[in-house]
Amino acid sequence: MSFRPGLRLLNSQLPLFYRELTGPRCRYVSNGLALNSEKRASDFNSFVGRTNTCGELRSAHVGQEVTLCGWIQYQRQGLFLVLRDFQGQTQIIIPQDEAHSHVKKVLCHAPVESVVRVTGTVASRPPEQKNPRMQTGDIEVKAKTAEVLNSCKKLPFEIKDFIKKSEALRMQYRYLDLRSFQMQHNLRLRSEMVMRMREYLCNLHGFVDVETPTLFKRTPGGAKEFVVPSREPGKFYCLPQSPQQFKQLLMVGGLDRYFQVARCYRDEGSKPDRQPEFTQIDIEMSFVDQAGIRRLIEGLLQYSWPSERGIITTPFPSMSYAEALAVYGTDKPDTRFDMKIIDVSDVFRSEEIGFEQKSVKSQGTVKAICVAEGARYLQDKDFESLKESANSQFNQEVLHFILKPGESLKPPLHRFLSEQQQMELIRVLQVQADDVVLLAAGEHKKVCSMLGHLRLESANLLESKGLVLRDPTAFHFLWVVDFPLFLPKEKNPAELESAHHPFTAPHPSDTSLLYSEPVKVRSQHYDLVLNGSEIGGGSIRIHNAEQQRFVLQTVLKEDPELLSHLLEALECGAPPHGGIALGLDRLICLMVGAPSIRDVIAFPKSFKGRDLMSNAPDYVTPEELEPYHIQIAWPAAEAEANKN
Amino acid sequence: MSFRPGLRLLNSQLPLFYRELTGPRCRYVSNGLALNSEKRASDFNSFVGRTNTCGELRSAHVGQEVTLCGWIQYQRQGLFLVLRDFQGQTQIIIPQDEAHSHVKKVLCHAPVESVVRVTGTVASRPPEQKNPRMQTGDIEVKAKTAEVLNSCKKLPFEIKDFIKKSEALRMQYRYLDLRSFQMQHNLRLRSEMVMRMREYLCNLHGFVDVETPTLFKRTPGGAKEFVVPSREPGKFYCLPQSPQQFKQLLMVGGLDRYFQVARCYRDEGSKPDRQPEFTQIDIEMSFVDQAGIRRLIEGLLQYSWPSERGIITTPFPSMSYAEALAVYGTDKPDTRFDMKIIDVSDVFRSEEIGFEQKSVKSQGTVKAICVAEGARYLQDKDFESLKESANSQFNQEVLHFILKPGESLKPPLHRFLSEQQQMELIRVLQVQADDVVLLAAGEHKKVCSMLGHLRLESANLLESKGLVLRDPTAFHFLWVVDFPLFLPKEKNPAELESAHHPFTAPHPSDTSLLYSEPVKVRSQHYDLVLNGSEIGGGSIRIHNAEQQRFVLQTVLKEDPELLSHLLEALECGAPPHGGIALGLDRLICLMVGAPSIRDVIAFPKSFKGRDLMSNAPDYVTPEELEPYHIQIAWPAAEAEANKN
Repeated sequence: MSFRPGLRLLNSQLPLFYRELTGPRCRYVSNGLALNSEKRASDFNSFVGRTNTCGELRSAHVGQEVTLCGWIQYQRQGLFLVLRDFQGQTQIIIPQDEAHSHVKKVLCHAPVESVVRVTGTVASRPPEQKNPRMQTGDIEVKAKTAEVLNSCKKLPFEIKDFIKKSEALRMQYRYLDLRSFQMQHNLRLRSEMVMRMREYLCNLHGFVDVETPTLFKRTPGGAKEFVVPSREPGKFYCLPQSPQQFKQLLMVGGLDRYFQVARCYRDEGSKPDRQPEFTQIDIEMSFVDQAGIRRLIEGLLQYSWPSERGIITTPFPSMSYAEALAVYGTDKPDTRFDMKIIDVSDVFRSEEIGFEQKSVKSQGTVKAICVAEGARYLQDKDFESLKESANSQFNQEVLHFILKPGESLKPPLHRFLSEQQQMELIRVLQVQADDVVLLAAGEHKKVCSMLGHLRLESANLLESKGLVLRDPTAFHFLWVVDFPLFLPKEKNPAELESAHHPFTAPHPSDTSLLYSEPVKVRSQHYDLVLNGSEIGGGSIRIHNAEQQRFVLQTVLKEDPELLSHLLEALECGAPPHGGIALGLDRLICLMVGAPSIRDVIAFPKSFKGRDLMSNAPDYVTPEELEPYHIQIAWPAAEAEANKN
Repeated sequence: MSFRPGLRLLNSQLPLFYRELTGPRCRYVSNGLALNSEKRASDFNSFVGRTNTCGELRSAHVGQEVTLCGWIQYQRQGLFLVLRDFQGQTQIIIPQDEAHSHVKKVLCHAPVESVVRVTGTVASRPPEQKNPRMQTGDIEVKAKTAEVLNSCKKLPFEIKDFIKKSEALRMQYRYLDLRSFQMQHNLRLRSEMVMRMREYLCNLHGFVDVETPTLFKRTPGGAKEFVVPSREPGKFYCLPQSPQQFKQLLMVGGLDRYFQVARCYRDEGSKPDRQPEFTQIDIEMSFVDQAGIRRLIEGLLQYSWPSERGIITTPFPSMSYAEALAVYGTDKPDTRFDMKIIDVSDVFRSEEIGFEQKSVKSQGTVKAICVAEGARYLQDKDFESLKESANSQFNQEVLHFILKPGESLKPPLHRFLSEQQQMELIRVLQVQADDVVLLAAGEHKKVCSMLGHLRLESANLLESKGLVLRDPTAFHFLWVVDFPLFLPKEKNPAELESAHHPFTAPHPSDTSLLYSEPVKVRSQHYDLVLNGSEIGGGSIRIHNAEQQRFVLQTVLKEDPELLSHLLEALECGAPPHGGIALGLDRLICLMVGAPSIRDVIAFPKSFKGRDLMSNAPDYVTPEELEPYHIQIAWPAAEAEANKN
């Protein structure tokens, strides 16, 4: 029956946009069925006018009369069409006999992407036409009746061009983009994972889901908070960056275990891959310590992790901030690959080293990373690009050398090092033939940060040449702990600011230092890192009112009046407490391997914070602003333009 | 052992604020245990430094060494204290021997409401000291070690005065109010009910939980939307009143079944028992009809309804808007009691009726409600108050008369009615001795609304005198359907506005009227009413772009450009779809019988929209407004004051 080519063939002729349902073409999609098989059986057909979804029918259904609703994926020669819904595709055979001429007419005339309801009988496909790559590839439905529920009048562009178009176009026509297999998969996986998290927290561990306000008061120093004018002249609400204060007050209120899938807001202007509103899994517990929170989160992720993404091993490894910085040059190390930073200062200690116009001063260090097999993959222009990064972003010189098979260094280092020192360097760095070493000298933190950056850049370069350093199916969770509690302010290093926020408790071993040398105090903050991205952070909080007041007033020089309600609450029997927040958008993004968090959010904003579909934000009339006692302060140029 | 008086006695000496844990004193609390017994076993002690909660220990634990954390409820004579947490109270015996003098010192010196950790052995109480009204009344814990985790420095007022204080004070010190049994119960019940709803929707019926943006664009006519200034001069986001547009677009995007526990925003200025932000269970489905949505919601409420509140019977009864208005004088009838409105126009039809200076014109009607046994409970001043309401709120005259035991009417109606007509009236209204009849004449809708109002006012009056008309443990759900699609605008009755919103589909039987007599078209809108409060509403939506454009442009005279993205989406293969939103705050409030929705919200705003705890909204400096290109337009008086 040559009029029914296998879908396998046809699929390759389809636009990419709609192709994925028949197989994992996109690197971050997987079999949609895996998701459903691990769930309790959901009834997708309750309450609606269909008997089955388009992804549901199998050989076992042969002979049944079914009613399907879906979109016409394509239609061929008046003989058959493929009907699509969120769960899959089903091949519909268009009847050719006179008695069903109306059905044929309806199905042949409906444009692609029209919505139809078809009733018919499930039949087995002839063996040679079975399509093992299609979930419903064993069967087809012989249509008896058909009805166009809504005709697709026009599409804003040729569907086959869709993926080629810009992300802006995808966002403008988001409702079409949502029909793609990727978006359906991502949003459904997100919903299911959050549901599993809720089961773990609510049902297994007695957490209470409490909704906290999003119309709140500006927090001291909350520069990134959106303001919301109120009807009281001059007074504004703020959209909070997190429910931090509320969750602590819930602990004071004896709620004991709180969680919320909380909407948070941060106005950072234009930043790629940030959203003005985002979601965090927000958690707080009373009578808990760091170890307790860590175990909770490890259990939570293990419980909610979709089986299609493998199994998570717990406990997660842990690393101090100091170690993360020294070894990976960052507080969020990607531990999927080595290329660690190694301190080679000792090799250079005794000599006056003149390389790159820098010398190892007493407070300076010399550090290196070793790019294994780098010489086989990297070219001169790559080294130039690495050095350019170091120079432009860190104002640092970097020296590179390669160990040639004959154990000689190239370029030779005899200008700086004795033969013996060169051998020592090779030994310490465990350099092997064809490895590339990147070497730099300077202040510890700066050199580490720079080499941490080059480490990732080298990995990108190697992967762009076909090497796989970072297994995309591997998930390396890591706790980073023992952060400093305070940092010198960038603009005025004599003053201190909170490394995270002013409610973080000091490390128990360092409490006494708080009053003598606050800059040396480590905190009880912890970050959760996944594959080099921070996906969560939290801390044990200060529950002692005096300590909190000291931190605010004496260390941070802030007006404690602005937080008087919190200080007062701490005096009224606040239990010891701590918590964490997981960035849900980023977590899901990493889990599905999506290129951007916009691929795991139903209606994301552009990197300029615009909704390209509805065109938000938009102009509002002065009359509409009147109840809020505000008026627009036009920048000079626009005010001028408005006059004319 | 006379030094340990039974808690039963002690409890009566306790301030009301903390009393409830030992029994349902408050009319809307019930036994906290009921909640937990129906759940899968939650582990409340995982990850934290206690072995048990304060509500957990029973005779079976006798002999075990336990660690409890909690608040000191009270301490007596250095002999024992009661420790409290979210789950209950446990009596702690303070050791009196020398070896434990430190423990005694710690526990005796800690102020009430201090947070302590106590380790000790569970012991059986002597039989005469067992307290059956206390969950843990069979046991006590003999303390071995004790530690003050946080001393309660001061309370902002005497705890015993707390309940007597105003709601404003409760809100200012919300973290103390949250420690009360009522608030703990309400928030936990809310969390658990929402969790059950999620299980029903996600796990049983394949709904996808999708988060939609809250920074959106102003909707046409969206007068009650908060504006959020953006960094683009003159451009504003709006906080949406509901995710209406997004959920419809999700259906166009093929999501098939969407739900969200959605935060919504409405700026209504000062309104009692409204909150500027509120939560709705937001639902949308493709390929569904009215009956499907109704069955879904009935199943959802039945599944999630807490067993302590009884069992819900389905299907819920249904009533047309026309019937609700005619019989109950409202679109949200409280069907827990009768006192229905009865049309008695026929009795008056043939005569010229002169009562109260009104006559039954051809378009007028005469209606009445019969207050059963009213004469036994209501006094002259009550009738005066009812008539005053009718007059002031509806500009309507009302006549009342009582059927005396001898079957004579008082006051006599012979001024208006013949003997035979009086008998007919008594027959039609089924008046019995001591019943009171309230009678009024005029235009149908106006008289119905007024009598509907008097019906509720009469019920209030009767209940204030001790009669129970509305069983507080009964839950009467009711669907109200067949609303008009459009209503004449109040200010200009020649123009039409949407009765609900412009996306509501017309009733299938009335579709043709849309183009000829739109004012006669009934809609596919449905409201869900519980005990006389609207707790939800929804509709089948328009999925045809032309029909939607006609409604917007021709019927409503609105600019369709503002909704161009939605109209465009409808042209791209939008499936038939419909949905509903349940007002979660009100639903929970009615379920627990709380006097105000503020009792089921963790951090509510005052009726003026203020957060009395943190003092939001608050002033913001002009510098902080600069990035948003707005400035404050001070009202004249304040601008003057600011100058000086």
